[in-house]
Amino acid sequence: MKSLPSVLLFFSLFLVLSCEKAKTDSKLNFIIVFVDDMGYGDLGVYGHPTIKTPILDQMATEGQKWTQFYSAASVCTPSRAALLTGRLPIRNGLMGGQVRVFFPDSQYGIPTSEITIAEKLKENGYKTAAIGKWHLGHKKQYLPLQHGFDYYYGIPYSNDMENINGGAIPVKNHYWKIYDSEKPVSDNYKVPLLENNKIIERPADQTTITKRYTDKAVDFIRKNKDENFFIYLAHNLPHTPLYASDEYRGRSKRGLYGDVVEEIDRGVGLIMEELKKNSLDKNTIVVFTSDNGPWLPFEQHSGSAGLLRNGKGTSWEGGHRVPGIFWGGPIKKGMVDELGSTLDIFPTILEMLGVENIKDRIMDGVSLKNTLYHGKPSKREMIFYYRSREIYAVRYKQYKAHFITQGVYNYPPGSNKKIILKEPLLYNLDVDPSERYNIADENPDILRQIKTIVDEHKKNLDPPDDLLQYRESD
Amino acid sequence: MKSLPSVLLFFSLFLVLSCEKAKTDSKLNFIIVFVDDMGYGDLGVYGHPTIKTPILDQMATEGQKWTQFYSAASVCTPSRAALLTGRLPIRNGLMGGQVRVFFPDSQYGIPTSEITIAEKLKENGYKTAAIGKWHLGHKKQYLPLQHGFDYYYGIPYSNDMENINGGAIPVKNHYWKIYDSEKPVSDNYKVPLLENNKIIERPADQTTITKRYTDKAVDFIRKNKDENFFIYLAHNLPHTPLYASDEYRGRSKRGLYGDVVEEIDRGVGLIMEELKKNSLDKNTIVVFTSDNGPWLPFEQHSGSAGLLRNGKGTSWEGGHRVPGIFWGGPIKKGMVDELGSTLDIFPTILEMLGVENIKDRIMDGVSLKNTLYHGKPSKREMIFYYRSREIYAVRYKQYKAHFITQGVYNYPPGSNKKIILKEPLLYNLDVDPSERYNIADENPDILRQIKTIVDEHKKNLDPPDDLLQYRESD
Repeated sequence: MKSLPSVLLFFSLFLVLSCEKAKTDSKLNFIIVFVDDMGYGDLGVYGHPTIKTPILDQMATEGQKWTQFYSAASVCTPSRAALLTGRLPIRNGLMGGQVRVFFPDSQYGIPTSEITIAEKLKENGYKTAAIGKWHLGHKKQYLPLQHGFDYYYGIPYSNDMENINGGAIPVKNHYWKIYDSEKPVSDNYKVPLLENNKIIERPADQTTITKRYTDKAVDFIRKNKDENFFIYLAHNLPHTPLYASDEYRGRSKRGLYGDVVEEIDRGVGLIMEELKKNSLDKNTIVVFTSDNGPWLPFEQHSGSAGLLRNGKGTSWEGGHRVPGIFWGGPIKKGMVDELGSTLDIFPTILEMLGVENIKDRIMDGVSLKNTLYHGKPSKREMIFYYRSREIYAVRYKQYKAHFITQGVYNYPPGSNKKIILKEPLLYNLDVDPSERYNIADENPDILRQIKTIVDEHKKNLDPPDDLLQYRESD
Repeated sequence: MKSLPSVLLFFSLFLVLSCEKAKTDSKLNFIIVFVDDMGYGDLGVYGHPTIKTPILDQMATEGQKWTQFYSAASVCTPSRAALLTGRLPIRNGLMGGQVRVFFPDSQYGIPTSEITIAEKLKENGYKTAAIGKWHLGHKKQYLPLQHGFDYYYGIPYSNDMENINGGAIPVKNHYWKIYDSEKPVSDNYKVPLLENNKIIERPADQTTITKRYTDKAVDFIRKNKDENFFIYLAHNLPHTPLYASDEYRGRSKRGLYGDVVEEIDRGVGLIMEELKKNSLDKNTIVVFTSDNGPWLPFEQHSGSAGLLRNGKGTSWEGGHRVPGIFWGGPIKKGMVDELGSTLDIFPTILEMLGVENIKDRIMDGVSLKNTLYHGKPSKREMIFYYRSREIYAVRYKQYKAHFITQGVYNYPPGSNKKIILKEPLLYNLDVDPSERYNIADENPDILRQIKTIVDEHKKNLDPPDDLLQYRESD
């Protein structure tokens, strides 16, 4: 009979070897959790005082918490296009001028010529699922199944569209107060819920939607645990109108917004449990980020950009900079203050898999693999802050120049005026993340350098027609 | 010969029992690290993007991170008096009217009749050290050795006092820019460094002061490791003028302010290493907090209040709410969004030691032991925001009423005007930590309740003479 220590030794060795195998031999799985309108400051680990997000906090502590991570656009449709294609949406018609996102009466969607992460991963043998908000066209040819996904379950656009009472923007001191006092009624928003290409529910019951999205993601992991998989889980929330399940409603000190975020946090926890249960945490990378900053006119129903200026829809930091958490697989633990963008997720995945990057078109993303695996400096040096097909601001290294400033949603009233600055503003964001201290006068060389960068960028742009402008009524 | 497993078992049992003994039998040691003018948002774990504070982040993750922890005053002298006595400084003459802190020509200091944490711990057999800034009177009778401390090493007031070039407030766009470009010269600020009651250096070399304070704290632990000890380590920094050692200068992306905070973080790390080396981490509680919010007129040389409004000197959240981290001993891990105050540290220590609270005077602190040990709700329900001997605002549970608002340091210009509000403002801080959405109109009952609280509070006040107003020149 073997003695206890040798059995233990053998068993430990076996465990170590299995882990190593999982780490290096198996192909990685990828899960992207993309939330809607969550601000930079809405998670515990990003400094929110009363929203409790223990799962995401733990992911950030065990994995990498990025503090200068950007969405490629400050509103929904172009932001999603950027993440899925690795390209600035100005290059594929998905950056709108007057109309900034797709609506239920929009004519078009993501062009067939675009290549999504899902298409590329499917080519490489992955099972692929899109769960949640799509917002890249709701006609059949634009839906996920026609763009690389094996499975789709979700609301095809924003959860406030098709509001039977009218527009999306709240009447100040009205909308959220009535809303807070009553059980939210999905019937006010007759958005459809789709499975694959078919409507299965209308109006979608949004009080259970976060939970159902999570369940579908867990199911997909369970069904495909012996294969490689890619899940793009794009929660419709915490975009307004806010809905939480009975279990979460009234739980957070932060009010309904907090309930919603805490339910999303729990959902990420269920996904991580499923990964661990199947020993998939060692070869699955989970990315958590947001499509843009908080939608401030909704006041208590909007999130917080923390110490950043302004929010959704603007070219201030609060509009573009978002939480960015990378966890699992070979991600090296740590806080990262390098530059990163949702544009970079596609090329990063390709480099992680040893698959050649796309060559037949300009890709705006760069691979972050060396930072994620080894904590090395990021290759990204620039952030373009596009708004309505124009460059409003550019970040180069730590410096951000604003060429145009403009408020949005008339919040606060009178702030919508577009100002083309004769003297651009310049901020050092590493030192001054709140964009308070203009240092343009003292740094003419940096401004000149940034202007050269913009000129070069424009040379290679040649933007196609704006696809968002065409509505059924036209 | 014993088999390996039994030896292991015996050894493990021994370890477990020793830990238990350390936890329950030994008396606790206490270290309070009190920093100067650090804002709510200046640590990684409180959401700063580019200041790297891995040690404090780890303390917050392993221990308790309080997100609604308050300093009892928004400026230096009264804040320190409150922490050390557990009493609102309005009760002992240390809340100034026109003159808000002690200056080098102040006549008075902390009254002999006041009881400090150090006095009480000394009575109970503790070795006690004050290291760093004192600011409760610099004449001999007011210095730490005459108020319960066995040892003192530090600058007796703010590091910007006795500026040979004039006042402390910067000329906008001037002070920090010159400052940043040159090696800082301690000679501009001829503040003394004291050991016990004697000046040992003048001007104090401030470039090495953070390091020297840390070294003295580590020494004190080493010398008293077999006794019980209390260390009050009150760093002079990151109050301006900012100084970092050669090792830290230029290290942080956040600039000199970041260098200074990162050097303080490293100092806390050295203290924790010393505790662990001597197996004292299990029975030593380390508290980390700040005396008030960031001194905003210093712009890049000031800290950040994160998502909170305004900063040092004001009754907005940015003036009073500070980082609050509790680590070591039996502290239960977790993020805590209960109310706590620096006033509570004294009664908490007494309850932890089973020593009766002080009975012969009104104590404003309450013990937080049940929250710290068991995660139970805090007993604190109220925060008084005093400014210049008047109550400007009061927090009751989640609600904060402002009765007077006023800017400070004329930053931004014109903001100093004192406004006695006919209609008080009311905010729900759990939902709206940035104090943006006034809900007074909808909540007359809560306002009435808070007014009653103020009336009750005033009945038991009977404030003595303001000791800060008397200067040598008078």
